[in-house]
Amino acid sequence: MSDESQSIITLSLPRTVFIVSDGTGITAETFAHSILAQFEMRFRQIRVPFIDSLDKAHEVAQRINEIFWTDGVRPIVFTTLVDSQTNTVVRKTEGLVLDMFQTFIEPLEIELNLKSTHAIGLVHQNADSDAYRNRIEAINFSLAHDDGQSNKNLRSADVILLGVSRSGKTPTSLYLALQYGVKAANYPLIPEDFIRRRLPSTLDQFKEKIFGLSIDPGRLSEIRNERRPGSKYASLENCRYEVNEAEVMMRREGIKWLSSTHKSIEEIATTILQEIKLEQRE
Amino acid sequence: MSDESQSIITLSLPRTVFIVSDGTGITAETFAHSILAQFEMRFRQIRVPFIDSLDKAHEVAQRINEIFWTDGVRPIVFTTLVDSQTNTVVRKTEGLVLDMFQTFIEPLEIELNLKSTHAIGLVHQNADSDAYRNRIEAINFSLAHDDGQSNKNLRSADVILLGVSRSGKTPTSLYLALQYGVKAANYPLIPEDFIRRRLPSTLDQFKEKIFGLSIDPGRLSEIRNERRPGSKYASLENCRYEVNEAEVMMRREGIKWLSSTHKSIEEIATTILQEIKLEQRE
Repeated sequence: MSDESQSIITLSLPRTVFIVSDGTGITAETFAHSILAQFEMRFRQIRVPFIDSLDKAHEVAQRINEIFWTDGVRPIVFTTLVDSQTNTVVRKTEGLVLDMFQTFIEPLEIELNLKSTHAIGLVHQNADSDAYRNRIEAINFSLAHDDGQSNKNLRSADVILLGVSRSGKTPTSLYLALQYGVKAANYPLIPEDFIRRRLPSTLDQFKEKIFGLSIDPGRLSEIRNERRPGSKYASLENCRYEVNEAEVMMRREGIKWLSSTHKSIEEIATTILQEIKLEQRE
Repeated sequence: MSDESQSIITLSLPRTVFIVSDGTGITAETFAHSILAQFEMRFRQIRVPFIDSLDKAHEVAQRINEIFWTDGVRPIVFTTLVDSQTNTVVRKTEGLVLDMFQTFIEPLEIELNLKSTHAIGLVHQNADSDAYRNRIEAINFSLAHDDGQSNKNLRSADVILLGVSRSGKTPTSLYLALQYGVKAANYPLIPEDFIRRRLPSTLDQFKEKIFGLSIDPGRLSEIRNERRPGSKYASLENCRYEVNEAEVMMRREGIKWLSSTHKSIEEIATTILQEIKLEQRE
């Protein structure tokens, strides 16, 4: 086989990428994904979590070497291994090893004039910690206060999301709770509110912690049509009316808001945290 | 002031850490947090998201330099800036700049023999993409199928979490949906199931996608007591009974399970994805 035909075969295969971690590897995977998104080619990402012993390290080393022999190109290997012995095993493989941990630990040790502890399992909050319990409590709170289900304890909400039905309030509330331990209630704006031209009266006293979500009427109509096809609720005309009324109301009441149309949950949550100036719960 | 007294003052201040990103900076923040957790000292983490223009880069550069002048020590600066001009502005500050992007882009460009696109905003799924819609759909599914609320469409569930009340099913389901677009239903095991000594009959046909959560009875009793103090439901005796019956049933039915007692949501979710061999939805 000529070199040329071999390179054609190689190009048609997605490059294999390993994410090797002693923990879940979730953060490393997301991070690797964002780096690889900068290259216009296909990758096959394999997350290998819980590599917390030499035996497991040797196993994954073998998998990496096998891919090298099968594919004929070096797999990319992102590692976040705290233990130096397991790390060495993976570094010695045929992969291109990108060490996401040691790369930054070394300059930090010099800058801080302090040795790192090399302790495994410091990444995620301990399930027994207060911070972790707060996070679970925030999830329960956000679930209980989804879609205006309960007016009880709105006082303890960190933020109250406001917007028309299907503007993105629920996923954003849950994300804020899960990721940040933020108690996020959410409250729908319904046609009755537009006729009264007033905020739901329950919310009057909590105006400073309300954040609005709006959405493009065309997109809203699409989303609502998936749920209730052909309904008045989903019609473009009604969506235009509701969105317009909601935006007029939020402007009049001085409520900060953003359009969720082209934003990911992460982008919406980040903007809310900035605007409401919530301290992050750690 | 002698050098010594100055170093005492310095030690008492937490070191300032900036996370500077052109996107949300959420992944970089989590990652930085896990690296800093390796050092036994206090840090003050400041996430600066959406730095997507030269003006904003100059603003954050000034903030970094001001901290250096105020604190008298270099702030640590993690960056994930794709644009090389804004990146250069931050690199020229007085901070210890740890470039989490370029550090890995460079070796990858060599290995892949391909220039990176240097395009901003490739990190999070586009809110208009199919993948993103799937994720929202998964969240709605998990909410609708929380705590056995609905038996409809269990066929389309990717996984059905099973366990006694308060064993961690709900947060895990929501996390699987939000992070991975996995449709995770959850179903409670209740005293009636233990008397009948059978799985809830709705679940018989879905056994291969059931995953069980158990929990230490003492911990369960604590959690339940927060909700219903002094109740039979929360008593240690009852918790011991329910957990034992649940574990016996799961063993008998050949259902895989884990104990959630000392595990974070991320660890539970990762184990479930491994065991159920779900392809990750990207």
